[in-house]
Amino acid sequence: MARLTRRGFIKRAGAVGAGTAAAAVVAAPAIAQTMPELKWRMTASWPKSLDALYGSAEHFARSVAAATDNKFQIQTFAAGEIVGGLQASDAVSAGTVEMAHTAPYYYWGKDPTFALCCATPFGLNARMQNAWWREGGGEGLANAFFAKHNIYGLLAGNTLAQMGGWFRKEINTPDDLKGLKMRIAGFAGAVMARVGVIPQQLAGGDIYPALEKGTIDATEWVGPYDDEKLGFYKVAKFYYYPGWWEGGTMIHVHVNKAKWEELPKNYQQVLRDAAAEAHNHTIARYDAGNPQAIKRLVAAGTQLRPFSEATLDVCHKAANELYAEISAKNEDFKKIWDSIKAFRLDQYLWLQVADGTYDNYMMVQHRKKAL
Amino acid sequence: MARLTRRGFIKRAGAVGAGTAAAAVVAAPAIAQTMPELKWRMTASWPKSLDALYGSAEHFARSVAAATDNKFQIQTFAAGEIVGGLQASDAVSAGTVEMAHTAPYYYWGKDPTFALCCATPFGLNARMQNAWWREGGGEGLANAFFAKHNIYGLLAGNTLAQMGGWFRKEINTPDDLKGLKMRIAGFAGAVMARVGVIPQQLAGGDIYPALEKGTIDATEWVGPYDDEKLGFYKVAKFYYYPGWWEGGTMIHVHVNKAKWEELPKNYQQVLRDAAAEAHNHTIARYDAGNPQAIKRLVAAGTQLRPFSEATLDVCHKAANELYAEISAKNEDFKKIWDSIKAFRLDQYLWLQVADGTYDNYMMVQHRKKAL
Repeated sequence: MARLTRRGFIKRAGAVGAGTAAAAVVAAPAIAQTMPELKWRMTASWPKSLDALYGSAEHFARSVAAATDNKFQIQTFAAGEIVGGLQASDAVSAGTVEMAHTAPYYYWGKDPTFALCCATPFGLNARMQNAWWREGGGEGLANAFFAKHNIYGLLAGNTLAQMGGWFRKEINTPDDLKGLKMRIAGFAGAVMARVGVIPQQLAGGDIYPALEKGTIDATEWVGPYDDEKLGFYKVAKFYYYPGWWEGGTMIHVHVNKAKWEELPKNYQQVLRDAAAEAHNHTIARYDAGNPQAIKRLVAAGTQLRPFSEATLDVCHKAANELYAEISAKNEDFKKIWDSIKAFRLDQYLWLQVADGTYDNYMMVQHRKKAL
Repeated sequence: MARLTRRGFIKRAGAVGAGTAAAAVVAAPAIAQTMPELKWRMTASWPKSLDALYGSAEHFARSVAAATDNKFQIQTFAAGEIVGGLQASDAVSAGTVEMAHTAPYYYWGKDPTFALCCATPFGLNARMQNAWWREGGGEGLANAFFAKHNIYGLLAGNTLAQMGGWFRKEINTPDDLKGLKMRIAGFAGAVMARVGVIPQQLAGGDIYPALEKGTIDATEWVGPYDDEKLGFYKVAKFYYYPGWWEGGTMIHVHVNKAKWEELPKNYQQVLRDAAAEAHNHTIARYDAGNPQAIKRLVAAGTQLRPFSEATLDVCHKAANELYAEISAKNEDFKKIWDSIKAFRLDQYLWLQVADGTYDNYMMVQHRKKAL
């Protein structure tokens, strides 16, 4: 790069003379300030095989490089290459890496407030998350909290509403959840425990054999596009929906706060815009990939099952109890949950009018084979 | 800016000596290629009073300036300042301005294919439009068509599902549409004409007096946030939903194709990323503003009414007839409509599973006052 630049300069100076060279001298220092050459590392919470998520981290890095003429380069690392997937943001807090591509609810054990900045049971859907983040005070609230952990967060993706997961037997009533050994963690696991499930913590690679042997009865993961790759449909027949604990899971780029603040303003804007680009890229990948995957899964014998309203109701009640309990003892949590709850009330009022009726009419047409 | 830069240079050269100054000289020409100072003009299809839309054009311009340290400046103009709102992309085609912020269906009279790159009756919702554009071949198809008009299009916003508009009397059956004088244009107007409506073409400012005097019986506009500003609720009591002709209206930044191709690659990326940022900004503005506006409208006496299923069905049938007729004689239209139709089929299959059931459960909870 330096060599090419020097040649370019010599050629240019020769062609147009000293006046231009002098002008270039004057222009240079401002550029040295605003377009520094940076090489950052971003550790992701995903293996490379989850190409919608890991691919979104790569997409983000490519956008930043392209927008800065390769001056700002971000090297992406899969889970385990630098730190484990569930330690990605810890590495950012500690300054081991400049960035993480992650889902903040992984850090719920440290403080449940992290989960509110990601997805919690019966929370906002993907579009509402974007609106809450930008216009509902979410960005400010989340970053005031993240700052305590030395993190600056950018909203950079969403998995959309997830599936309820894979079950070896049918769940017809809330009682069928009692004693069920299910691989589910975090906030959702805590709610599940209240309705009788025995939550299990298992890393991605250990789930399939446990489900096959019957060591666990059920597992949740993401949705058809990602789940298909892990092969759960071969060892658990019933695929339940919706994943009431993840109505719209926010994916973040977490930046070390000091590193963020040192950036020139133009690079901060480049990162913001690249995060929006990655956000829409991720959503499009899931929206385009999920219908194809669900068709293949059903063709392979998967039985789709909705959770019954009674099942959802007991889970909703348990979730509300947990929200109240944590709010009573955690001020950050209460502040953010109150904000989300008020926003959710308005969003689900309005959704019943234009978008909800439009989509419901179209879904009816789909069933009538009229599309 | 130049003065500050010169001072900066002198200070820097003095402090660190001739070696650094020489390095700065070497670095300059590459920057001259990739960070040129540009001042472009963007003409919008909206008045400044429609702050969600015009504000989105400004947001886009601000992002581009901020990401390039003010080197790439885009000045925004409201409808009528350079050309009328419905001529915005014509000005881009002709090279009068470098950019337009617009809704492509305004150019449907020139070629109905423009409407498919924006919103047509019973088409995709906002999220599906994003997925079709990015992963369903939409961007390539639309830009192959736009190229014939010397335009390069960037997806830069969405109005979300719109409302069916303001009616002076109730529409209970499809027969109530017969003879109705309604302000509605383009593709939607052509479908409405098939079900007995007499479509009227009226500029924004002329609608209110016409509706007040009864010269027209109904009008459509956008949704609560924008409609409230025009005051229709004072002269028409019934507010119908959904706007079946705009399930997710795409807002574009149209760039003069030759100007786009002349841009350094990094500036092209800056525009792409800023378009994604503006896209999410616009959606958030509408999502945050619409619930507040609908509550105020209802408090002021507006009666919300859903179109009956029978009414939607006759309109859907009429729309399908029109799609078939235009497809038979317009190859570009057929190619893009076939792509959208196939994509829509998969999208509304999948929506019935995770997102649809999640949102429907939450809407039921809203009605039960359980949120």
